Amino acid sequence: MSQRKMRLGAFIMATGHHVAAWRHPGSQADSGTNIDHYIEVAQTAERGLFDQVFVADSPGLQYKGDDEALRRQGRVSYFEPVTLWAALAAVTKHIGFVATASTTYEDPYLLARKFASLDHISKGRAAWNVVTTSADNVHGNFGLEAHPDPAVRYERAHEFVDVVKGLWDSYDDDAFLRDQASGVYFDPQKLHALNHVGKHFRVKGPLNIGRPPQGHPVIVQAGSSEDGKELAAATAEAIFAAWTSLGEAQAFYRDVKGRMAKYGRRPEQLLVLPGISPVIGRTEDEAKAKWAELQGLIHPAVGLNTLASFWPIAELRRFELDAPPPWYPEPPKGINSRAHVVIELARREKFTVRQLYEYLAGARGHWVVVGTPQTIADRMQEWFENGAADGFNVMPPVLPQSLNEFVELVVPELQRRGLFRTAYEGRTLRENLGLERPASRYTASAQELAA
Amino acid sequence: MSQRKMRLGAFIMATGHHVAAWRHPGSQADSGTNIDHYIEVAQTAERGLFDQVFVADSPGLQYKGDDEALRRQGRVSYFEPVTLWAALAAVTKHIGFVATASTTYEDPYLLARKFASLDHISKGRAAWNVVTTSADNVHGNFGLEAHPDPAVRYERAHEFVDVVKGLWDSYDDDAFLRDQASGVYFDPQKLHALNHVGKHFRVKGPLNIGRPPQGHPVIVQAGSSEDGKELAAATAEAIFAAWTSLGEAQAFYRDVKGRMAKYGRRPEQLLVLPGISPVIGRTEDEAKAKWAELQGLIHPAVGLNTLASFWPIAELRRFELDAPPPWYPEPPKGINSRAHVVIELARREKFTVRQLYEYLAGARGHWVVVGTPQTIADRMQEWFENGAADGFNVMPPVLPQSLNEFVELVVPELQRRGLFRTAYEGRTLRENLGLERPASRYTASAQELAA
Ligand SMILES: Cc1cc2nc3c(=O)[nH]c(=O)nc-3n(C[C@H](O)[C@H](O)[C@H](O)COP(=O)(O)O)c2cc1C
Ligand SMILES: Cc1cc2nc3c(=O)[nH]c(=O)nc-3n(C[C@H](O)[C@H](O)[C@H](O)COP(=O)(O)O)c2cc1C
Repeated sequence: MSQRKMRLGAFIMATGHHVAAWRHPGSQADSGTNIDHYIEVAQTAERGLFDQVFVADSPGLQYKGDDEALRRQGRVSYFEPVTLWAALAAVTKHIGFVATASTTYEDPYLLARKFASLDHISKGRAAWNVVTTSADNVHGNFGLEAHPDPAVRYERAHEFVDVVKGLWDSYDDDAFLRDQASGVYFDPQKLHALNHVGKHFRVKGPLNIGRPPQGHPVIVQAGSSEDGKELAAATAEAIFAAWTSLGEAQAFYRDVKGRMAKYGRRPEQLLVLPGISPVIGRTEDEAKAKWAELQGLIHPAVGLNTLASFWPIAELRRFELDAPPPWYPEPPKGINSRAHVVIELARREKFTVRQLYEYLAGARGHWVVVGTPQTIADRMQEWFENGAADGFNVMPPVLPQSLNEFVELVVPELQRRGLFRTAYEGRTLRENLGLERPASRYTASAQELAA
Repeated sequence: MSQRKMRLGAFIMATGHHVAAWRHPGSQADSGTNIDHYIEVAQTAERGLFDQVFVADSPGLQYKGDDEALRRQGRVSYFEPVTLWAALAAVTKHIGFVATASTTYEDPYLLARKFASLDHISKGRAAWNVVTTSADNVHGNFGLEAHPDPAVRYERAHEFVDVVKGLWDSYDDDAFLRDQASGVYFDPQKLHALNHVGKHFRVKGPLNIGRPPQGHPVIVQAGSSEDGKELAAATAEAIFAAWTSLGEAQAFYRDVKGRMAKYGRRPEQLLVLPGISPVIGRTEDEAKAKWAELQGLIHPAVGLNTLASFWPIAELRRFELDAPPPWYPEPPKGINSRAHVVIELARREKFTVRQLYEYLAGARGHWVVVGTPQTIADRMQEWFENGAADGFNVMPPVLPQSLNEFVELVVPELQRRGLFRTAYEGRTLRENLGLERPASRYTASAQELAA
C-alpha cells in the first residue's frame, strides 16, 4: 500500500469539459447560471472526498468565430467565481474552492478582500488560481487599448500576489481579544498597514478583515510559459497543467519543482496537478462508445471553427467532412508552426476533416483517458508513482453525469489501491492538501530574528 | 385596515447597531467574520417576512481616535458584502440582499458581474446600495492621493450606474435557446456590446453573464446631500435615510420624490426607508432599562472620542464625566457650526459629559425608539401614514437579540394592524417590494419606437 496520497480536484466547467457537453442528455444545459446544478456537483465532489473544486474564468466573453459557430458555443454566460464559491461554501463542509481571478484586470485590495472573505465564510477552504488572463480580447472591458504583453502581465502578477499576501497579514492571528468585560476588542499593535509602493501598485492598507483562517488562501497557478513556471516556483502551492503523455508530464514536474530552490522553497510546497478528462465505461467498449457519442455531438460549424487558425473560414466551409483536408498531404506554404504540427498529425493519423476537428475540439488539449475504472486508475497511478503528478485536476467531460461516475467507480478503485483518502484528514483545504499554514510576514520576521 | 403595506429591511451591523453592542451578552462578539451568526440573523429576518437584509460597507478601515479608543472599536474586521450575501442566498429562499458597494473605488465591469452573479445565485433577490464612500481615508488602498471631491464622486457615480445597467442588459431576456437537438445555444443577435465611452469610463462589454432574473438588481441609495438626492431621484428604487423627527422625515420624503418627475419617473418607483433603532421592552420601564444598560456599556474612551471633533482630545481626558463639560455654558470661540448644535443641546438638556457622549454615540445619528411593541408600532405607523416613510430600515441595536425580539413582538403587532404582510407575495425582491422589472435598454427602445 502506498502511503503518499493523491490530491484530487474537480474542474467544474458548467456543463462539462467537453466542447459539446451541453448537448448531451447527461448534462444540465443551463448550468452556467444554475446554482442548483453547482450545489449538486460540489456535494457530489465532497461525497467523493475530492480536495477541491475549481472554476476557470475570464473577465469577459471569449467567444469567437462566425455567427454559425458562435451561436453553438455553450460557455457564454457564467457565474463570477468567488460569489459562486461563497454560495457553495454555505452548503458544504469539507471541500475546498479554487477560484480563478486575474492579476491583469482586478484590483489587489478588492481581490485580497474577497478571497479573505471567502476563506472566513468557508472556514478555511479558499484558494486563488492566479492567472494573468489568457484571453486577448477582454481589455476593452477595463478601458485598456490592448491586452498587455506577457512580460508586463507577469511582472504585474508578481507584485500583485505580494501585495495581496501582505494585505492578508494585516491583522496578526491573535489580534482579537474581544473582551466584553474590559471593552477591549483588539490590539492595535497587532494591526499592520502595508504601505506598499511599487511599479504597478500603491496600496496603503491595512485590510479590513482579520487574517484568513488558512493564514493565506492556497495559491494556485495555471500558466505554463517560462514566466508562468517562474511565478509558480516563486509563489504557487498547486499548479494545473495540460499534458497528454507521461514523458511531457515528468519533464514539466521536474522542471517546475527544480525552480523552487532559488526562491528558498522545498519541492513538496508545490503540488503538480495535471488535468485528466476521464471517459468511464463498465467495459472498454462502453467507454469508447461514450466518447464516440460525445465527439459526434460536435457540430461541424464548431468543429471547423477550431481549424480556423489553420485555414481561412471561407475555405473551411467548402471542405468535405468525411474526406481528408483538401490540400492534405501537401501543407500550404507560409502557415505557422502550430499548423504544421496539426497537419503532420492529420497526415500520420490519416484523419478526415471531421476526425481532425473532433480530435482538437473534444480534448481542448487535455489528457483524455477512455476506459474502465481500472484502466483509468492504472493510468493515474502510473503518472502518480513515476514523478509526473502529485494528483490530478479531474475534468469530467459531462456534468453532472461524468463526475457521478467518477465518484462511484474510479474513487473506490483508487481507495482500494491505497492511493486516495477514505476520509478527510483536516478541517481546512491546506490541512487536506498537506500544505503548511504560512506565518504572517510580520510575526515571521520577529521569529527569524529570535532564531 | 390599511391596504398599503410597509417595506421592512434589517440593517445588519455585525454585532448590532449600537456602538457598544459587542459588549452586550445578547450579541455575538466575533460576528463580523462569523458566518453562522449571519446565517442565523438572515433566517430570523426571513421568518419575520422582512423584504431584505442590508450591510453597510467601506473598502478600508474607518477606525479613528487614539489607541485607547481604537482598541475598543468593534467594527474593524468584516466580510465583503457580495460574498457574504452569496453565501446566505444558498441557505434562504425569500429574503432580499442589499450589498453596499462603492462607485468611487470599484470597477464597473467587475461590479456589474458580481451583482449579476448574486442575482442569479439568489434567483432574483439582489440589490446594490450605491455609495460614493463616505470615509475619507480609504483612497490610499487604491493608489489615490486623496478622496475625490463630492462633485467628482457623484459625477462618476451617475456614469458608473449607467454603465452597470447597460452591462446587465448585454443579453436579452430571451437570448438563450439551449436547443440540444439542433445545437443552437443562444442567439448572437440578442447579445449587445455596450461600447461605452464616457468621461470616467471606457467599457466595451458585453457582460459574460445572462440578464439578471430581476432584469436589474434593485438600486438603493443612501446619501442625503443635494448630489445624493439627485442620484436617488434619477436612479434609485429605495433610499435609506437618517431622520429623528417626523417633520424632517416628511420634508425629505416630499423633497426626494419631488425630484423624480424631471427624470421621467413616478414617485412610487422610489421607496423611502428611514432608519429606526427599536429598543423593545414588554413594558416601557423594561425598554428604558435596556437602553440604559446599553448606554452604560459605552466605555468613556469611546464616548469621549465622539466629542473629539468639538474639543481637543488632551482636554477631553481631563473632563469630569459626571459634571457638565467644563466650559459649558460658554462655547469656545472659533468652533464649527456642528459643535454649536451639540453644545446647545448639552446646555438645553443639562447634559453631563457622559450623558452628552452617550447621546451622540448610542444613536449614531439615527432614530431610536425605546418602548413596548405597541408604542414602537405606533411610531412606525405614524410615519408610514403621514408621508414620511414607505417602510423602514430596522437597525437592531444588538444582534441577534434585538432582531429576535422585533420578529417575535413588533412584526405580529404590525400584522395585526394590517400594516405588514403575513406571507411573501412574490418570488423576487422586486416582486416583494412592488417594484417593476425594468425592460432592457435594447428592447425598450424598440418598444418605444413601435408605440
Ligand atoms: C487547467 C488550466 C486551467 C487554466 N485556467 C485558466 C483560466 O481560468 N483563466 C485564464 O486566463 N487562464 C487559465 N489558464 C492559463 C492559460 O491557459 C495560460 O495563460 C496558458 O497556459 C499560457 O501560459 P502563460 O499564461 O504562462 O503564457 C489555465 C491553464 C490550465 C492548464
Ligand atoms: C442608513 C444609511 C446607510 C449608509 N451606508 C453607507 C455605507 O455603507 N457606506 C458609505 O460609504 N456610505 C453610506 N451611507 C451614506 C453616507 O452616510 C453618505 O455619504 C452621507 O449621508 C453623506 O451624504 P452624501 O454622500 O450624499 O454626501 C449611508 C447612509 C445612510 C443613511
